[in-house]
Amino acid sequence: MKQFNVGIINVTGYTGAELARLLYRHPRVRVNSITGRSAIGQRLKDVFPHLDVDSFISAELGDVNLAFSAMPHKASAEVILPLLKRGIKVVDLSADFRLKDAAAYPGWYDFSHPAPEFLKEAVYGLPEFYRHKIASANLVANPGCYPVAVLLALAPVVKEQLIYPDIIVDSKSGISGAGRTLSLATHFSEASDNVSAYALEGHRHLPEIVQELEALSPGSSFSITFVPHLIPMSRGILTSCYAKLKEGKIDRGERGKDKLRQLYYDFYRDEPFVRVVNIPPQTKHTWGNNFCLVYPTIDLRTNRLIVISCLDNLVKGAAGQAIQNMNLMLGFPETSGLEALAIYP
Amino acid sequence: MKQFNVGIINVTGYTGAELARLLYRHPRVRVNSITGRSAIGQRLKDVFPHLDVDSFISAELGDVNLAFSAMPHKASAEVILPLLKRGIKVVDLSADFRLKDAAAYPGWYDFSHPAPEFLKEAVYGLPEFYRHKIASANLVANPGCYPVAVLLALAPVVKEQLIYPDIIVDSKSGISGAGRTLSLATHFSEASDNVSAYALEGHRHLPEIVQELEALSPGSSFSITFVPHLIPMSRGILTSCYAKLKEGKIDRGERGKDKLRQLYYDFYRDEPFVRVVNIPPQTKHTWGNNFCLVYPTIDLRTNRLIVISCLDNLVKGAAGQAIQNMNLMLGFPETSGLEALAIYP
Amino acid sequence: MKQFNVGIINVTGYTGAELARLLYRHPRVRVNSITGRSAIGQRLKDVFPHLDVDSFISAELGDVNLAFSAMPHKASAEVILPLLKRGIKVVDLSADFRLKDAAAYPGWYDFSHPAPEFLKEAVYGLPEFYRHKIASANLVANPGCYPVAVLLALAPVVKEQLIYPDIIVDSKSGISGAGRTLSLATHFSEASDNVSAYALEGHRHLPEIVQELEALSPGSSFSITFVPHLIPMSRGILTSCYAKLKEGKIDRGERGKDKLRQLYYDFYRDEPFVRVVNIPPQTKHTWGNNFCLVYPTIDLRTNRLIVISCLDNLVKGAAGQAIQNMNLMLGFPETSGLEALAIYP
Amino acid sequence: MKQFNVGIINVTGYTGAELARLLYRHPRVRVNSITGRSAIGQRLKDVFPHLDVDSFISAELGDVNLAFSAMPHKASAEVILPLLKRGIKVVDLSADFRLKDAAAYPGWYDFSHPAPEFLKEAVYGLPEFYRHKIASANLVANPGCYPVAVLLALAPVVKEQLIYPDIIVDSKSGISGAGRTLSLATHFSEASDNVSAYALEGHRHLPEIVQELEALSPGSSFSITFVPHLIPMSRGILTSCYAKLKEGKIDRGERGKDKLRQLYYDFYRDEPFVRVVNIPPQTKHTWGNNFCLVYPTIDLRTNRLIVISCLDNLVKGAAGQAIQNMNLMLGFPETSGLEALAIYP
Repeated sequence: MKQFNVGIINVTGYTGAELARLLYRHPRVRVNSITGRSAIGQRLKDVFPHLDVDSFISAELGDVNLAFSAMPHKASAEVILPLLKRGIKVVDLSADFRLKDAAAYPGWYDFSHPAPEFLKEAVYGLPEFYRHKIASANLVANPGCYPVAVLLALAPVVKEQLIYPDIIVDSKSGISGAGRTLSLATHFSEASDNVSAYALEGHRHLPEIVQELEALSPGSSFSITFVPHLIPMSRGILTSCYAKLKEGKIDRGERGKDKLRQLYYDFYRDEPFVRVVNIPPQTKHTWGNNFCLVYPTIDLRTNRLIVISCLDNLVKGAAGQAIQNMNLMLGFPETSGLEALAIYP
Repeated sequence: MKQFNVGIINVTGYTGAELARLLYRHPRVRVNSITGRSAIGQRLKDVFPHLDVDSFISAELGDVNLAFSAMPHKASAEVILPLLKRGIKVVDLSADFRLKDAAAYPGWYDFSHPAPEFLKEAVYGLPEFYRHKIASANLVANPGCYPVAVLLALAPVVKEQLIYPDIIVDSKSGISGAGRTLSLATHFSEASDNVSAYALEGHRHLPEIVQELEALSPGSSFSITFVPHLIPMSRGILTSCYAKLKEGKIDRGERGKDKLRQLYYDFYRDEPFVRVVNIPPQTKHTWGNNFCLVYPTIDLRTNRLIVISCLDNLVKGAAGQAIQNMNLMLGFPETSGLEALAIYP
Repeated sequence: MKQFNVGIINVTGYTGAELARLLYRHPRVRVNSITGRSAIGQRLKDVFPHLDVDSFISAELGDVNLAFSAMPHKASAEVILPLLKRGIKVVDLSADFRLKDAAAYPGWYDFSHPAPEFLKEAVYGLPEFYRHKIASANLVANPGCYPVAVLLALAPVVKEQLIYPDIIVDSKSGISGAGRTLSLATHFSEASDNVSAYALEGHRHLPEIVQELEALSPGSSFSITFVPHLIPMSRGILTSCYAKLKEGKIDRGERGKDKLRQLYYDFYRDEPFVRVVNIPPQTKHTWGNNFCLVYPTIDLRTNRLIVISCLDNLVKGAAGQAIQNMNLMLGFPETSGLEALAIYP
Repeated sequence: MKQFNVGIINVTGYTGAELARLLYRHPRVRVNSITGRSAIGQRLKDVFPHLDVDSFISAELGDVNLAFSAMPHKASAEVILPLLKRGIKVVDLSADFRLKDAAAYPGWYDFSHPAPEFLKEAVYGLPEFYRHKIASANLVANPGCYPVAVLLALAPVVKEQLIYPDIIVDSKSGISGAGRTLSLATHFSEASDNVSAYALEGHRHLPEIVQELEALSPGSSFSITFVPHLIPMSRGILTSCYAKLKEGKIDRGERGKDKLRQLYYDFYRDEPFVRVVNIPPQTKHTWGNNFCLVYPTIDLRTNRLIVISCLDNLVKGAAGQAIQNMNLMLGFPETSGLEALAIYP
């Protein structure tokens, strides 16, 4: 039954390891190649003792039907382009094919895009928006961790044009989001018992948020302030979105709240991995699984929309999402390999 | 030299214990009475082993010049009123005398105020706003932990009327803010590795925030959405404030940022416990001390003001602030007993 | 294929919830009854939002082939005895059938055992010791969380009689081991950034440790000091065992270390859930999965044996172990439903 | 009154920063020189925002009466020797002058000692053992963080020869003990929710533990197994010591426990920074202050001594201890600058 071979490029970071955790237990695929420059020739379990897997890490990707790239941006495009030419399907977890506008790369990512022609072909890998396109794509650009939480929080009201385009997004992320590379900000003694805002000059995930919201509501121009914060926990993103409701579009008072919630329920009714919840969600409720929890409400004093959403940044925010995309691309049930419930407490 | 006797009412909560930690080492006062219903007759150090103090906890307050009340709201007013009549100065750490409008109490705090006549007399205990009034007050209403961080973050731009009155305040608090009373939300296994929003229907600290901002900018009417979040750390509040800058009031671009920062520097130049910082502050930088760190900036893409502020919720957000108020009320140097540097890491 | 119905008694504690997490995704059984006095009539996912399951919690157990009891001790025996009489197989996660000696219950657990005749019939549910007996048992007494880590750490050297019977066991447990019941010791602000020893008068898991070690080495009489410590993490137990090696039984020096490790490899060669590791293991390497990692070494200066072992207290230390036992009792592959890799970081 | 000038060599690590935190608020000394190679020319508060101090960091130590060296081992001796020759008193926080036997350095610390003649002159800086020698010393070797907790836990019973010399020491340390240098083991995502043993081949603090215990009980030869563990908290060391009581030296049963506790009370009666406690102590009870808490008891089943001790590794385990030593060396009250109570929670 496992007729598909898949590979993981750069398995030695947290995203790569998380892909391995899920793919080695996926019922429909065989992981037959993993690469990682810093650990060539080592067994996966020697690098990551939690991965009880004997596979060896190679320098080069072997023969696969589909590859996941967990390379950093710029390097990812370089390694992916030859694969695409060989007819290998690719899910790219970097930012290299997320933005449709090649001109945005130098400003946000400090490099000129090497293959702008693929930006049109690449599908933004948010199944809740692009399920059908993903199913037939050769190249899927897996979204950033923050954008997933933001886009799923705002899609219903943006699509229905219930809010003004001035939006505040205040996100709180666990520290694995900063990766496995060492830094003072992620040193335990500094990061524990601490919280701080960062990237106040503009975070790289902002342009994909704007791009996708504008795609949902053609003709709108969004003015978004997005401020991420570092929280002393390994995993999880909680996003709090604030926007002014347009007058007359939705009832005032508790009735408006109910209608809003109903709108969200309807919008996500058939989604396997989005849950509209009726109490404010907690990141820990998604620890290790592929859910995004969404809680919409209204601040009745100010008639502002508040939407809180959360997810596990390494799963629905990265590796789980990538596997959900793979499931669509290879024709598997969308939830295949992603059914595990969250680990709590 | 220690000619003043002070007392702590309800020393057995976290705020009471923090008052004890600081007051027992204060160079100018003698703590000669501590009360706490749940631990009558016990020595303080048996309840709180970190307080190496032999004092016994009583049922009733003894003879003091000034009393701190760390009672919960409603109970605090009841215990304070007789003291005031006996001529004892009081710093009340509850909310019972913070709001000027007695009519606000039933809605926000679920009780009818027992002594509205004292609401006018009470001084809101934010020395940065009311230093001189505090110095001559008999009753000081120590601010809520969240409002301190919010008001110090916004005062300069509100006073200068640089922003529109639509403000988003997204706060992140350590868990000691929820007190020493047990609850599932503060159970370690639930609260660790977790973050969530709460009080989305309206938090009790909102009315004092509005009251004090409107006092700063008479005639303005503020529309504030305030959402607190619970963060897995014992201490600390970080507050992120978002507001739209009025056109033409401040330069565009980097120049505007510089002017903004200069405005804050000037505003707080002589404040002993407010520091305007030039990198985003971290709650851990205030662990155990009485500072509030404030970082103002502008989101140049949207021309929005962002101000990040932080403090230790039990010190500048509660007990340290109360002692700063006492210092003013008793004519001590304002920093007396509060000079310790923060503990980091 | 899911021809077996199972039930969970007292699903509302952490152990019960962990059973639910694993059993609702088990490929061979159907959870058709869950009980929990504090939440009768509620849906499981309303009590535990991480469990995306619509089942309702009942007062009474329905018709099942096998039941898991996650009741506290004493209450567990009371609820189990009628089930056994109805011919329902039971895995008891309490201590009620772990000790062979009924006379030990009053001293250690403060009650007289209601059914001493079942103590002989009950099988101690450590598959690594009693795999075959478990397979044919009607009543399995699932071990305590600490004993699993201790027994797997010491079994090879005790069985081979390589050590003197004077053993120090110093264990470090995450806080979920204290359960979901609220207490000051497990209040976040108290438990975070903290470590302490407890139960210095004797922990209830000591008698089962002694019982099982003596069963491994008939005729020996063990003198064990067991001290558990509380560690600021939700999950995990790390156990450090110290004992004097008998002279002449194993080589001195590095050669002795190698032989020791080989002994452990051989001993656990065919075990699906024990891994002998060659670097000191970390609790986080077992987060959420059913492994026990064991690291034996020798302190060459003193010729003392040191064995470090670790596991997830809620999985191999409780619910996962119980399911491993169920797999044996119902004739499933032993690893069924327990294949997930640990979640890290 | 501040007639003494002191300096801190290598202020940029955690130990150096902790010295600064305490010394800049010390009532009797003036910090007039701080050095740190990685931050020459920067202000202290730019490197450590929690230190609200404007001093600049230099390359070379200025004119001081006493210097603290927070350099790593080997480098510390190199920088200290010229100071001693200039008549400057020194408290060395490295290991370079702790061991009396120069021959021990190559094996434990990988270098040949450059000045063995100073090893005899240097005083081991544990005031509870060597108060008078410290008072007249020019060079004090501040103990390692682990040895302080171990020696204070064991001194009374070793001096009274109540135990056999076979001792197990199982220590648990917060992560700041590993310093400010980045490593995977101290990366937040790896260290949080985790516990592990390390240095199983022998930790560098072992020889000073043995040296000092043998000095307490001349003629004894100790066989000590010392295993440190890494705990997910910033600060704190908890040490659990286990040893067999000699027969006939102390009563059996509860009476023996009482006598043991009385022995400890008497032993430490006049110590300003050691507290014998009657419930198992918690590291958090010493957060930020200079106390060592000691809890002695007996495991009555096995007649083993258990002593639990704890302290803040950066204070009584390093900087606070160093200041206590300085107070003795300069003739100040021993508690000067160290009176602050612990911060809890």
